[in-house]
Amino acid sequence: MEGSVRVDAPADPDGAGEAVVSQKTGTLYGVGMGPGDPDYLTVKAMRVLERAPVLVHFCKRGKRGNARTIADAVMRDPAREFPLAYPYTTELPPDHPDYVAALAGFYDEASDRLADHLGAGRDVAILSEGDPFFYGSFMHLWRRLKDRFPVEVIPGVTGMSGCWTRAGTPITWGDDVLTILPATLPRAALVERLKGTDAAVIMKLGRHLPKVRGVLAETGFLDRAVYVERGTMAGERVIPLAQKPDDSAPYFSMVLVPGEGRRP
Amino acid sequence: MEGSVRVDAPADPDGAGEAVVSQKTGTLYGVGMGPGDPDYLTVKAMRVLERAPVLVHFCKRGKRGNARTIADAVMRDPAREFPLAYPYTTELPPDHPDYVAALAGFYDEASDRLADHLGAGRDVAILSEGDPFFYGSFMHLWRRLKDRFPVEVIPGVTGMSGCWTRAGTPITWGDDVLTILPATLPRAALVERLKGTDAAVIMKLGRHLPKVRGVLAETGFLDRAVYVERGTMAGERVIPLAQKPDDSAPYFSMVLVPGEGRRP
Repeated sequence: MEGSVRVDAPADPDGAGEAVVSQKTGTLYGVGMGPGDPDYLTVKAMRVLERAPVLVHFCKRGKRGNARTIADAVMRDPAREFPLAYPYTTELPPDHPDYVAALAGFYDEASDRLADHLGAGRDVAILSEGDPFFYGSFMHLWRRLKDRFPVEVIPGVTGMSGCWTRAGTPITWGDDVLTILPATLPRAALVERLKGTDAAVIMKLGRHLPKVRGVLAETGFLDRAVYVERGTMAGERVIPLAQKPDDSAPYFSMVLVPGEGRRP
Repeated sequence: MEGSVRVDAPADPDGAGEAVVSQKTGTLYGVGMGPGDPDYLTVKAMRVLERAPVLVHFCKRGKRGNARTIADAVMRDPAREFPLAYPYTTELPPDHPDYVAALAGFYDEASDRLADHLGAGRDVAILSEGDPFFYGSFMHLWRRLKDRFPVEVIPGVTGMSGCWTRAGTPITWGDDVLTILPATLPRAALVERLKGTDAAVIMKLGRHLPKVRGVLAETGFLDRAVYVERGTMAGERVIPLAQKPDDSAPYFSMVLVPGEGRRP
């Protein structure tokens, strides 16, 4: 799967110069952008970002995606940018059939547009927050394109690694079991999965913060839970969960329950 | 916690030139070395590795540590190298009181030696496979030194991210729950934690492979389990667990159970 980025087929948005485009198809790169601080990009990610002719980032309509902000360090050519704006997400829950259908249509259309670039020999790099294969939107494009084009995934530092680093707390010691949970799960499922774990990371907090607090109290983890908002990014905030009001939690926030395993 | 590496106090092994050593103490860096491929080092890790006057790596007596091998890309000055050889580990299980005492003595002594460098104003970088705060030996030195010296931890791509990347499989989709388990746990504990999870990573395989296989069969995960050995390193091997004989599994191997969550 290793291979350097081919730059023999530069982006050509106005259609001129078709003659120089290689007959080889482009490679689809899933680029792990790390947790937020651009210093936590990998050497390989930097290399792909500097050279790929098409740089794709997900965003909400009218807003800048976070992966795109991380890329500021290397993004100097606006002609390479390829934003993909999600369909509106506020009205419907993520498991509603209409929302699933809207998202499927969005990914289908986006994949078709990227396939045009790949088919014309242009490498396409999809900027993925954290690690591309860990809850990444990249996976939905990858699934649609992987059997038609060469793919290379570049792993990244996960958002949770960035958060426990900035919280200044190891997450697992010795034989600790770590459970990673989306806060979107029903209360009973969260309780069930937290019982008997040694350490936990609860992601996708948003409006689920009061439920998560209750679940941690019930399972005895509230006292050691840490709330981290925008870890490694501008506006970073780290406080004990017990001190965090239930008012609001942005999408880029999570709760950490550090393990307490073997410490010789 | 952010700060650039100070190089005003270079290593000075022969004691000459004491006069130039700064009065400031050095900083203890925990450097996430990523999963194995040096291209997955972060920009920040590279910067610290290039400049820190003392580079510490853990190893077994007479062998080269894996973190040290990853550092080959930047390690050009043998005078900076500071190996820490673990006490012998083959005779005793990791929870045996004698082994715990031997390890504690080893970490105490190592911390004292590093404190000498830090106290003399020399930055010390501890090379940590994967991410320093995720099952890292670094944590045992950090715990002994963090209240006496400035510390900066640099998160890294975890070994498990490297493995699922090379296995070519996303590990979590949608609201999947991911459970991370050391194979060293008793069989009953492994079964209990695997029941009801959506995805799993089982680390520290070694001689526990037959037990892990049995547990995955019992919990219905065997068919989708993937065995990855030395992910992103020389000698990498990815096969379905069902095809992997029970003969042996090196320390750098793990089993992945990919999630099957929401895919619009």
